[in-house]
Amino acid sequence: MLQSKLFTKIKREDPKDDVSKNAKLLIRAGYIAKEMAGVYTMLPLGLRVQNKIIDIIREEMNAIEGQEVLMTGLQDLEIWKKTGRWDDSKIDIWFKTKLKHGGEIGLSNTHEEPLTRIMTQHISSYKDLPQYVYQFQIKYRNEPRAKSGLLRGREFLMKDLYSFHSNKSDLDKYYKKVREAYHSIFNKLGIGNITYYCYADGGSFSKFSHEFQAVCPAGEDTIYLDRKNGIAINSELIDQLSSPLAGLLNELGLDIKPKDLEKVKSVEVGNIFPLGIKYSKPLGLNFTDKDGERKPVEMASYGIGVTRLMALIAEIKSDTDGLIWQKSIAPFEYHILCEQGNKESVKHSKNLYDKLLSKGIEVLLDNREETLPVKIKDADLIGCPIRIIVSARSLKKGGVEVKSRNSKEIRITPINEL
Amino acid sequence: MLQSKLFTKIKREDPKDDVSKNAKLLIRAGYIAKEMAGVYTMLPLGLRVQNKIIDIIREEMNAIEGQEVLMTGLQDLEIWKKTGRWDDSKIDIWFKTKLKHGGEIGLSNTHEEPLTRIMTQHISSYKDLPQYVYQFQIKYRNEPRAKSGLLRGREFLMKDLYSFHSNKSDLDKYYKKVREAYHSIFNKLGIGNITYYCYADGGSFSKFSHEFQAVCPAGEDTIYLDRKNGIAINSELIDQLSSPLAGLLNELGLDIKPKDLEKVKSVEVGNIFPLGIKYSKPLGLNFTDKDGERKPVEMASYGIGVTRLMALIAEIKSDTDGLIWQKSIAPFEYHILCEQGNKESVKHSKNLYDKLLSKGIEVLLDNREETLPVKIKDADLIGCPIRIIVSARSLKKGGVEVKSRNSKEIRITPINEL
Repeated sequence: MLQSKLFTKIKREDPKDDVSKNAKLLIRAGYIAKEMAGVYTMLPLGLRVQNKIIDIIREEMNAIEGQEVLMTGLQDLEIWKKTGRWDDSKIDIWFKTKLKHGGEIGLSNTHEEPLTRIMTQHISSYKDLPQYVYQFQIKYRNEPRAKSGLLRGREFLMKDLYSFHSNKSDLDKYYKKVREAYHSIFNKLGIGNITYYCYADGGSFSKFSHEFQAVCPAGEDTIYLDRKNGIAINSELIDQLSSPLAGLLNELGLDIKPKDLEKVKSVEVGNIFPLGIKYSKPLGLNFTDKDGERKPVEMASYGIGVTRLMALIAEIKSDTDGLIWQKSIAPFEYHILCEQGNKESVKHSKNLYDKLLSKGIEVLLDNREETLPVKIKDADLIGCPIRIIVSARSLKKGGVEVKSRNSKEIRITPINEL
Repeated sequence: MLQSKLFTKIKREDPKDDVSKNAKLLIRAGYIAKEMAGVYTMLPLGLRVQNKIIDIIREEMNAIEGQEVLMTGLQDLEIWKKTGRWDDSKIDIWFKTKLKHGGEIGLSNTHEEPLTRIMTQHISSYKDLPQYVYQFQIKYRNEPRAKSGLLRGREFLMKDLYSFHSNKSDLDKYYKKVREAYHSIFNKLGIGNITYYCYADGGSFSKFSHEFQAVCPAGEDTIYLDRKNGIAINSELIDQLSSPLAGLLNELGLDIKPKDLEKVKSVEVGNIFPLGIKYSKPLGLNFTDKDGERKPVEMASYGIGVTRLMALIAEIKSDTDGLIWQKSIAPFEYHILCEQGNKESVKHSKNLYDKLLSKGIEVLLDNREETLPVKIKDADLIGCPIRIIVSARSLKKGGVEVKSRNSKEIRITPINEL
């Protein structure tokens, strides 16, 4: 894309009303725009990153036989009443609204209830199981505090997967598969090395649930981390069970000593819940087993916060100059900076741009009427993986200046060797 | 995809609470599920069709230099108050809700206000214009009646494009370009021959606006249609202006005689509004002109109802047996029906399926434990463009039975000639 055509302009100053690093960087660089606290529009650069994160997750979901759907924002209170989750004392972040002709409805904050109802139309026998259904859908959560930019949104994009099984051991098998898929996703996003499988409170479902926590100073969670074994424990679990750490480790069957655990701040990037029959029972999602017996379906749900991932990566993969995207999720792989006043630079920049485009490579050409120092500053802020400067000076030296965003080294490379 | 894996099951009977043809067919065939009146989940088949419609529209939007964004469902009342559209007497289909810490907010029913505010951060000079920004985003409309399935949703997917110009003549030029892009979209969707450019009431923006109306008996609109010249007039316009048709035709500069107009029912599949400075003025979206003068930006907006298009096509491209998708938007191009009891059929079906997949062709293989007559009935309901039956009988005749969904002709084709 030609940067002169991009409608977003780089901001020289931090936004006044956002305190989080991710929001500051993403707003200044033109990835997002703030609508209100915790509610952000995706601008062209941000949408490109979001779509790449989606593609990585979708590939893994399809690989474990997930079938993609798109459920609705508006929610029928009847099904939520049946599971006891309509009441604000049970789910305290509901947005509720009213239909013109009367009747209250809610805005989606998760989708166990509507999907369970849908499945009652499609599952009747053990032969119809297992099933795996996922979506990328906007969630609305009436968060009292929303000061962490995209880390905690009132409106945010989530990947939510739900699995349906005839028995617990089949559920357990799939649960492990999803766990592996999640690790693969976090690896592809470049955060595999800081993201840990974490034991957490199971809420009303079960004693324990499992999270994926990424170490990040801006995180709102605190975990006890065993880096060596790649295992963590959410501090909430300890507080809620008010059990001493040693006893808890024992109960979890973990051969870890409390003194080996490190207390760090983290961001919950994913969670997986063994739901059992918590929703299938009240909503009547039953099946006929091999022996003719009617049973409720065993369920689990698995979430990943897509916009939150973008925020996390902005938090931890950035420096004082700006964002540092890796290739798999960068808005553009190459950022060519052209010295606008110099005819040779303009010509060679455009040729290189066309050449990369023709090879299907994503490239942003900074052809704005700005000086090179300004363009360099802006390129660092935007954070594409590879910056190429085509200037009078570089051409004199025999080529173009190539620099990775995450390294200091600058190489002069002949254009035809790129 | 293997149909045995698809979680949705064909329904033998019409849904009890949906009267519209599109909802009946799409629900029975497993494309959508109803959450409440006017609110439908996209199931795997439906999402595939929706994504194909999106791809067709996106390609045309990018071709006219549209830059894609994704704005939010939650809406800040401040900007809507500034343009006078927060009041229910002005927009009568608002869903409104409350923030936990106090303060009312709305759900998006259109996005002129938030995008105009965003653009104030990015447009300051005539050099920053024109700009074209679009999105595919969920709209919420508190419709008092929602009995037409996906034709009139309380929650629906819309493509909305907004253009920003330094002067009216530049706007007019782009307006014509969008009109052409829209015709191209409707052609690619296979409804070009029944979709007409239509003069409509301009509401509070201007005397006239323009719609794209597709002739359809289930439509909620009535138009006066000149098929020969491809022009229509919305009957609302005549009612609202209470002007005789002849006078109106004259005012519009149309050389058409009232007696040549045919009165038909139709569905509004797109609209384009010349907004002028209606929103830029109250929201302070100004620019400095070449002569140093500050002026409000000229705007226009352009909508296409994505889910409504799916409904329209289901209404008009279907027969008593089911849906009839054309290739460009079908969930799968080929539907292979296998005679499950027959080993040769199973073997050849699977081989053909693998072969088509390896060529990147989208194919659904009906490998369910059902009889061929049931599979044929279900295939007609689902409506993929090409049905291939691999049966003992067809193999004996030297190949497979190939039939287009929209033709009666059945050909026996040797497998290796497919």
